[in-house]
Parts: sequence; structure tokens; C-alpha cells
Amino acid sequence: MDKVTPRTLSGFMELLPAPQQQMEKLLETLRRTYALYGFTALDTPAIESAEVLLAKGGGETEKQIYRFMKGDSDLALRFDLTVPLAKYVAANYASLAFPFRRYQIGKVWRGERAQRGRFREFYQADIDVIGDGKLDIMNDAEAPAVIARAFAELGLEDFTIRINNRKVLGGFFELLGIAGKTTETLRTVDKLEKIGPAKVLEILRDDCGMSAEQAERVLEFVTLSGTDEEKLAYLDERASGSALLAEGAAELRAVIEALPSLGVPKERFAIDLTIARGLDYYTGTVYETVVNSHPEIGSVCSGGRYDNLAEYYTDRKLPGVGLSIGVTRLFYVLGEQGLLNPAVNTAPCDAIVLPMTEDTAFAAHAATVLRDYGIRTQLYTEQKKFKQKLSYASKLGIPFALIIGEDELESGEVSLKDMNAGTQARYTPEDAALAVLEAVRARGAEKLIKAD
Amino acid sequence: MDKVTPRTLSGFMELLPAPQQQMEKLLETLRRTYALYGFTALDTPAIESAEVLLAKGGGETEKQIYRFMKGDSDLALRFDLTVPLAKYVAANYASLAFPFRRYQIGKVWRGERAQRGRFREFYQADIDVIGDGKLDIMNDAEAPAVIARAFAELGLEDFTIRINNRKVLGGFFELLGIAGKTTETLRTVDKLEKIGPAKVLEILRDDCGMSAEQAERVLEFVTLSGTDEEKLAYLDERASGSALLAEGAAELRAVIEALPSLGVPKERFAIDLTIARGLDYYTGTVYETVVNSHPEIGSVCSGGRYDNLAEYYTDRKLPGVGLSIGVTRLFYVLGEQGLLNPAVNTAPCDAIVLPMTEDTAFAAHAATVLRDYGIRTQLYTEQKKFKQKLSYASKLGIPFALIIGEDELESGEVSLKDMNAGTQARYTPEDAALAVLEAVRARGAEKLIKAD
Repeated sequence: MDKVTPRTLSGFMELLPAPQQQMEKLLETLRRTYALYGFTALDTPAIESAEVLLAKGGGETEKQIYRFMKGDSDLALRFDLTVPLAKYVAANYASLAFPFRRYQIGKVWRGERAQRGRFREFYQADIDVIGDGKLDIMNDAEAPAVIARAFAELGLEDFTIRINNRKVLGGFFELLGIAGKTTETLRTVDKLEKIGPAKVLEILRDDCGMSAEQAERVLEFVTLSGTDEEKLAYLDERASGSALLAEGAAELRAVIEALPSLGVPKERFAIDLTIARGLDYYTGTVYETVVNSHPEIGSVCSGGRYDNLAEYYTDRKLPGVGLSIGVTRLFYVLGEQGLLNPAVNTAPCDAIVLPMTEDTAFAAHAATVLRDYGIRTQLYTEQKKFKQKLSYASKLGIPFALIIGEDELESGEVSLKDMNAGTQARYTPEDAALAVLEAVRARGAEKLIKAD
Repeated sequence: MDKVTPRTLSGFMELLPAPQQQMEKLLETLRRTYALYGFTALDTPAIESAEVLLAKGGGETEKQIYRFMKGDSDLALRFDLTVPLAKYVAANYASLAFPFRRYQIGKVWRGERAQRGRFREFYQADIDVIGDGKLDIMNDAEAPAVIARAFAELGLEDFTIRINNRKVLGGFFELLGIAGKTTETLRTVDKLEKIGPAKVLEILRDDCGMSAEQAERVLEFVTLSGTDEEKLAYLDERASGSALLAEGAAELRAVIEALPSLGVPKERFAIDLTIARGLDYYTGTVYETVVNSHPEIGSVCSGGRYDNLAEYYTDRKLPGVGLSIGVTRLFYVLGEQGLLNPAVNTAPCDAIVLPMTEDTAFAAHAATVLRDYGIRTQLYTEQKKFKQKLSYASKLGIPFALIIGEDELESGEVSLKDMNAGTQARYTPEDAALAVLEAVRARGAEKLIKAD
């Protein structure tokens, strides 16, 4: 028979079992942390009507989207989790209680040009709080607090959540008399890290038509150094000149001042007036998150405040604030940078039971006892030599083997072998379970990302 | 602006938050139980090359599959988790240790005719053990043991895993001299529950060309009553006439005898000689699982032993045994039949913190304390009246509210309100956390499915 070559499409992550276990730990940590803040899990279809997904239309999205006909239906795969959320909230408005807090962790698809570290199928892990008409600014402080805890739980120690407010930027441009140039100024300022200050000044003067003075003041503003308190004071001093700047500065202060009581240490966040995040979606608070030792990675978690979640589906005003982690890319980068903790158990189980006799009933019983204790246990019953059985356990990195030969069978005990230490001792199945459990717990506390 | 109607495609399950919480509990229970038996998590792409997915080709699959072009690529969405597993094992053969035990819980897509209870996008939850050349029969006993524990963990008490062996059927047909008619006989026998014995006899005689005697003996065989031991004895008596029957009977006996030591109570499984499960894939053990109080649901978990997982991709012989739960349909049916336990907490959180003062720092601190204890906690900071805040908590079914007014702020305490009992008392945030934690634990032990 002619064989088809078994292959996986380029741009689609498919992991071997050990790294998949690490990915599972990442996803599970995010799920648990998001739920801890009262975000409810949501699951929307991968396929939606193309008309619904492309209600906003235009741009890169239309080019990248996976769109196809099935019978008479014009369908598409979701390209993010925000549009499905907008659809969901608009469609189920009457059944939801607001603020509506949801998390969604799921795959999205974008047919981008394939290149190293870029994925066409990837997980996003989003949290959003949606208000009905209004939404308190404290939500803008809580969203990054969720992310700070999630990263801490993952073991990431050296990150900074950079926070800004679009109204601060807009208000300052008003003051400078360049309010009509907000969009192009923001687009230029957004490139500061990539192209450097000299080039930014040049674009602001030559392409945005600013005076040298205006361009200098824009650059001075966005590169302002000092503590958060000094930056807030700088804004307050200028706030009387622009109602928008005053509003933005007050919001920014509220967020910054609330973060410590939400459990976020001072060194985990900072005001960064250069952040704008796209052009037409965010309207207030904006966030980016950088790993300080690896700034070249770019932002690993971004988001912000928006005025109208579902404007393409409903007239209701539904303001919200959200943050999104690109999980697949984050996982890829952690691996590339060697940041994954090798102490995390990536074996399929914590213990393997190796019967050496024909009669496997006691081995099955021992495996059942361990499972009753919550220990992930494999029962190995293939007809292989002892050495091959141990080598299987060792290839998979299984930390404990329960060996059951004639002697053990007779005494109703197992020989528990610590595969790393090489030590071995006899126990009843129950005592073996307790011994394994202790080690499992210690190892389970290992974080996914290793400390620097 | 013209609005697009926000809608979800027909045949795609999209749940409101409360039922989604139940679905999450279902998925989480399956994940945990599968992992407990040493199955490693696998995640394969939703999209594959159409050539790879349709390597086997033909039949219903080609009609139902979502297939489309993206650029020059002929792509399709996976329609099950078995074909991706075959591809994965064939492609990664050298990197895997065998037996390879994996679970995968993920969505698959089939463009079936939409009807009540039928889904075009649905979760499957599969376990499979794949051997390299050979695979011990004990694996055929362990697979249903995993499912038995999963159902027990879900709270499903009254189910039976029906077990048969294709070799027993084939061997018996050999004995009767109707071996050439195995396929059509199996197809007919498979319909016994649907069309009844008289109609089966008629088809066996008229369409399969058996004598009345042969047809009667086929029917007698598949409707054999008695205990498992009696059925095995019946097979043993006839085993000398057919090597295939002898082999099947020995395998069936090995599986049935191993199940109790694997922790499966006798009343949870039974030999059922009528089960054939499809025609060309399974070669040995086959399983179906019925909810005894609701036989009309059909099988909620099916599978079996196969000789060649990946024959379309590789010459290597990779035998395996697996079981699959159609999770979306199971969840739908549980809801329809009123089997979901209302005592399971479907609120987005266990506690909500309601500050009544302008200063929310202490409220944020209290929320942080509860979260540190692992309590899913929402901080509610919207500017609403007290009554509206309580009504929000009550609409969501949140069991505890921490109310913080001027008095509480002054004393550094919170008023903890039990929303169900209506009682209220003052605690420090830490003591409130301990009180909530106890209730959360008790409620967390509630099973998804209510006891009959």
C-alpha cells in the first residue's frame, strides 16, 4: 500500500510528550489564576459565520483569516478571542450580570507568513471585564494584578508591567497644539524602541509636520525619566491646560496607587508614557509586559481599556478592560531562552509498577492503591526483560518504580526504587504510596520557569 | 452604523457561564483521571493537510469534513482524534517510548446535518495505548478501568461497561460455517437493540443467506444470558472447534478477570456478546458503555483493540487499544435528562468583596488575602447602591459576600455574609478566608452528576 507521509503543517505547534507536559502546566496555571480573580471560563466555537467575525472588517485580518464555504455557509476560524467575546456579550446581554468577567484560553488561527517563532495556530489566554454603560477604574488596576500573580505562579520573577493611559497622551498633544496629529504621532512614538529617538524626531518633523520645538517636547514627554510619583506629578502640573490630560492623569494615578493593595509589588509595574498600543481600539489605560532580562522578546502580555466592546453588533455601550497572553509564543520563547525549569516533572506519571511475575493481580492492586492516593501511576505489563522495563521507565524520566517479583508477591510488599537516587526499599503498597506522595508534592511545587 | 446580528452557528455548543462551569468540571475531571493512569497529554493542530487526514479516505468522513484551500494548501479540520494520533505516532516514532500512552481532549468538527443533540463541533476525550509490534492484553483491561474511575469521579453511579471480543464473534461464525459472512452478520447483529430479534433472524436468513438453523444459533449466541463466568464457560466449551474463538475467549477472560484488581466493581462491567462496534477497524476487545437508567442515550464511551494504528503512514505494526468519550454530547444528554447536580457551585467565584466606602484599599487587601488562600474572589468596585451590589452577587449565585463599610474599615474587619443562609458575622480577613475555605471545600467535593 502506498503510504502518505505523516507531517504537521508548518506554523502549527505540535509538541513531544515532555514539552507538552510543560505546556499543560502553563495552561493550568493560567486557568487557575484567572479563576482565582472571579473570571468565569468561556468557550466559544472555533468556527463562526464570516459575516460575524469580519463585522469590523478590513486590514490584515481579512488577509490572514482562514475563511471557507461549507454548503451555502460562508464560515471562518476565529482569529482572536475578543471578537467572539463581543458577539457573545451582545447575543447574551439579557442573561449576563454586569460587570461580566470572563477568561478564555483557546486556539486562534491566522494565516501569517510562516517564520521562526511565528505561529498560524496559537493559544491566547484572555481576561476581560465588561461593564454595562460604565466600568469603574479599579478594574484597570485589577487586570494587571491578575497577570502579575499568574507570572509569579509560573516562576517568572523579573518582569515589569508597563502602564500608560491614552488620554494622557491625547491630552498632552492637545496642550502642544498637535491634537489633530494624534494618530500619526502615536504611531511614530510607538516605534521608539525599534527605531530610536533621532529617527522619531525626524519623522515627527518631516512626516507629521511638527515644529522642531513640538517634536522635541513630544520626545521629552515620552522619554520622561523618574519614579511613578514624579511622572504623576509632572502630569498633574500640566493637567490644568487640558481636561483630557487631567482625566487621564487621574485614571493613571488611581491604577498605580491601587496596585500595591491588590498584592502587586512596586517593582513589578511602572508608568511608561511611550506605550500607545495600536490606534483605534484602546481609549484609556494601556499595558505591555516585558521580561527585564529579555527585552528583545517584546511584550508578553498586552491590553487595555476600550469604550465599546460590541459596537458592530449592538447600540449598547459596553466598556471593558482586558489583557491577553500569547501563550504559544510565550512558551516557544521560554524554551528558546532556556528559561524552563528542568526540575519540573515531565514524565507521563510519578510511578510505574513493574510486575516480574506472571500473576499481575497484586501489581494491579498496588497501582490502584497509588492511584487512590492521587499518584499518577502506570502499570507496565508488557512481556519484556527486567532491564528493558527499567530502561523504559528511565527513558520517560519516571521518578519511582515499584518492582514486584516472587519475594514481594509472597510478602505482599513492593520494592520501591527511587530512579534518580538509585536507592530501593520494601514497603506495603500503602506505605509506598505515602513515600511517593511526599516526593510528588515537593516536585509539584516546582515552578515552570526557573529562577534567574 | 448598520449592525451585524450577533449569532452562533447551529450545531455549535456555546454555553452560558453557569453551564460552562459544569462543562469545565467535566473536562477537568477527565483530564485528572486520565493523567492518574499515566496517560500523557497530547495536543495536535485543529488543521491538518487534507491528504494526511483523508489518507484512509472514503465514506461519510469525506462528506462531513470541513475542507478548504488556503493559498495553495489543501487543508481540513480534524474530524476525530485517532487520525491525528496515528500521524503523530508515525511521525515521532523514534522519539517515543512504547507502549505510548496518551490522552487527548479536544474539539473535532463534522459537518453533519444539524439536529437536536447532534453537534458539528464537539469535544472528544480519548485515551489510547499504542504498542510497538505487540501490546499486552492487560492494557485492554486497564482502559475500561480508567473510564470506570472517571465516571465514578463524575458521580455517575449506574453504568455498565459492556465488553466483547471480535475474535469470539469471528471464531463462533467459523464454527457455524458462516465465516465468509462475518461482515454482514456483524452488521446485522449490531442492530439487534434497534430492530429486535425477529427482524435480525429475517435478515440473517433472507439477506445473508443462512439456514434457519444457522440464523437461530447466531441469535442464541449473541443473546446468551447468564453471568460473565457462565458466558466464558460457554465459550470455553466450544473453543476447541476454532483457534480464533479460543484466542478471543482467552483474551476476554483475561480482561474480565483483571478488572476487579484494577479497582472496577463487578457490577460496573459485563460481557455482552452482541457488541461488534463497526466493521473494519477493531480486531479484538470492544467496549460500549451504557447508563442503565437511560439506555436510550446509547453508548457514552466506546472503543476497542486495533491491530494497526498507522497503516496509512507507516509499515510498522502499531497495535493499540483505546476508548473515547463524546464529551459534548454526554454533557448535552446529562443536562437534558436532569442529571446535573445543582449543588455544584456554578458561580464565577466563591466570594465577592463589596466595599461600601470610597476608600477601596482595605477591600482590595481583603480580596488579596482570600486569593492567597486559594479562594476564587471577586472585588466589586462599581458605584452602585448596596441593594444592587447584593443583587448582583445573588444573581450570580456567589455563596459569600464580604461587606466593608465605615465600621468595618475602622476595626480592620469584614462582615461575612452567607448568601444562602442569610447570616452575617464580623471577622478579620484571614478568619473570613478560613470560614469561606471550609465551605468551598465541602462544596468542591460535590460531584457533577447527582446520585439517583
